[in-house]
Amino acid sequence: MPPTEKHGSEVSIDPWGETVVEDYGRVLKEFGIEPLVPILSQIPNPSMMMRRGVVFGHRDLPRVLDAHKKGKEFAVMSGIKPSGEFHLGTLLTAKEIVYFQKMGGRAFYCIADIEAYEDNNQSLETSEEIAVGNVADILALGFDPQKGYIYRQSKETRVKDLSFVFGRAVTLNTIKAIYGERQVGLYQAALVQAGDILLPQLKEFGGPKPTVVPVGIDQDPHLRLTRDLAQRFESKYKFIPPSSTYHQLIKSLTGAPKMSKREPMSYFTLDEPLGSIEKKVMGAFTGGRATVEEQRRLGANPDICPIYDLARFVFMDDDGDLKKMQDDCKSGRLLCGECKALRFELVSKFVKEHKRKRDSFIGKARKILEIG
Amino acid sequence: MPPTEKHGSEVSIDPWGETVVEDYGRVLKEFGIEPLVPILSQIPNPSMMMRRGVVFGHRDLPRVLDAHKKGKEFAVMSGIKPSGEFHLGTLLTAKEIVYFQKMGGRAFYCIADIEAYEDNNQSLETSEEIAVGNVADILALGFDPQKGYIYRQSKETRVKDLSFVFGRAVTLNTIKAIYGERQVGLYQAALVQAGDILLPQLKEFGGPKPTVVPVGIDQDPHLRLTRDLAQRFESKYKFIPPSSTYHQLIKSLTGAPKMSKREPMSYFTLDEPLGSIEKKVMGAFTGGRATVEEQRRLGANPDICPIYDLARFVFMDDDGDLKKMQDDCKSGRLLCGECKALRFELVSKFVKEHKRKRDSFIGKARKILEIG
Repeated sequence: MPPTEKHGSEVSIDPWGETVVEDYGRVLKEFGIEPLVPILSQIPNPSMMMRRGVVFGHRDLPRVLDAHKKGKEFAVMSGIKPSGEFHLGTLLTAKEIVYFQKMGGRAFYCIADIEAYEDNNQSLETSEEIAVGNVADILALGFDPQKGYIYRQSKETRVKDLSFVFGRAVTLNTIKAIYGERQVGLYQAALVQAGDILLPQLKEFGGPKPTVVPVGIDQDPHLRLTRDLAQRFESKYKFIPPSSTYHQLIKSLTGAPKMSKREPMSYFTLDEPLGSIEKKVMGAFTGGRATVEEQRRLGANPDICPIYDLARFVFMDDDGDLKKMQDDCKSGRLLCGECKALRFELVSKFVKEHKRKRDSFIGKARKILEIG
Repeated sequence: MPPTEKHGSEVSIDPWGETVVEDYGRVLKEFGIEPLVPILSQIPNPSMMMRRGVVFGHRDLPRVLDAHKKGKEFAVMSGIKPSGEFHLGTLLTAKEIVYFQKMGGRAFYCIADIEAYEDNNQSLETSEEIAVGNVADILALGFDPQKGYIYRQSKETRVKDLSFVFGRAVTLNTIKAIYGERQVGLYQAALVQAGDILLPQLKEFGGPKPTVVPVGIDQDPHLRLTRDLAQRFESKYKFIPPSSTYHQLIKSLTGAPKMSKREPMSYFTLDEPLGSIEKKVMGAFTGGRATVEEQRRLGANPDICPIYDLARFVFMDDDGDLKKMQDDCKSGRLLCGECKALRFELVSKFVKEHKRKRDSFIGKARKILEIG
């Protein structure tokens, strides 16, 4: 198992296992990630997630902002493990890619089917089926395939070949320090991902350029490995170490430490029937009090509430509305039942609209994935 | 470093380092390899190396012999790390491939350029240059490309992809037990080699079939890993665990424990100037006595003599001649200086003839490697 740091609050970062973060400030310190707040004013048009602290940290983001400011080329790169339909975590990453693409970045979206195999023993055939929906999802979110590249790891020889290039420079101690003791296949998957992250800098894509990788904090180990490899192979490829942004992990609807596939009530996917989503939202854990009387008197706590997270992370566009929701919650004016019903309306509106767009992109997705 | 077993005589098997074997009987026992002698009578036309005990052990060779006997398909597979010109070790392997090809096996010859990169940091471009000569060498030795497949690992997507398939099933403990603690790249190279060994059984090559892998004993770790993987993926690919034969390692000309690139006097390559080969042969360590008088009286010891090895492994075709050489050596009739001169004549004849053929195959080799 990978190194877990525990000092009072729990911090465990593992891209293939349990990532639990109780204190994001602690994560910044322990992994040497910069907080986003001090550079927020340098970002021309910060995204909703950036403004609200959902994106809470970064590495070397100013390098990308600087390229943008000077009209120079930059890239945005991230991906999805195609082991299921879009859920809220994959939605965040996809929205972030689209954000940086609209800012002018050359966009790369990787379908991590090698990782799905190594981590979940999922066949490439199954990944192919699922990837169609995933690609339609990101197209529905506004990804422009004319200015971007969507690919599967298993079909992209260049990222596989980079994994062999990099392996030579990675000692067993290094990889164990980053990922813990794993089967060799997960180390291979990690090296392929380093290839994914540096792919935008190959000469076929215009050569070295600042690249931002927006991810959930649980993916940071891949960034640490890749930044190290970019330096080791700098002389051969002129790689610029990738930049990254980190978003918080959205809370489990059940109040458990994290959303998990093993707990279907803890999360929902974007293609789930609305009735099922409604049931999960209406039955969710909240930051409410034990009794109505107590809540009216003392107010509730949005900071521990997954319903507040739904609004803050994704579904409530207006910052003023969010502030009002928070105030009403804290003051006790808004009770949890009513609040849940309001938020489900937002979710429902988003999901219906998204499904409609997504369905219209299925054919295009199949074409992009070159599925006959 | 990989596990070294020491009990009186030294046995250290390492495909990427020092392999020292003082007692081949001990190797058979320790690694569960079968001796060849008991099945020699089942081999229709045993090679010179088999008859003389140079090929001293095997795993499951009867499976291949049985296929041959019944007129069923079988394959022979081995390869070369293209880090230099053919030397006596690579010559042995190449001759063994040609032997099994002539017996009717579908032959596969792998240019292990990924291994040359991971182990020696040799670029794929350099490997390409060197591979031309290596391929011309095996063609000169009688390899029939019409009934065989010669390829580079770096260009053969199927073996690279198999490495990803296999990685999932290989725990860190397993690979450490076989190869010791290595950089991740060498583990990747090992998994690619497992892909090489099982390539003949993919459906594109007619599906599962008995396959013999003739190698030097130092390569046995790859066979142990691959036999394990063949079983683990039996349900998906119907792999038949590969068979193997093992040849002894030819003695260093200097009397050091093994031939080594770091000691140029310890070995010669087939494209070396004859003057240089002559110097090495004539200056070689032998099993001779301290004085002529003593040698005439007590005889010499061919068992420790690299000059006797040259004759026994490769350069003396006739078993009767070899027996006479041995008798004359042991009886003291033949002194080392005279013996060396006679053996150099054999080497010289072989090398001249080989060079002539090899030069005529350079164009064909480039074509096989698809070099423009």
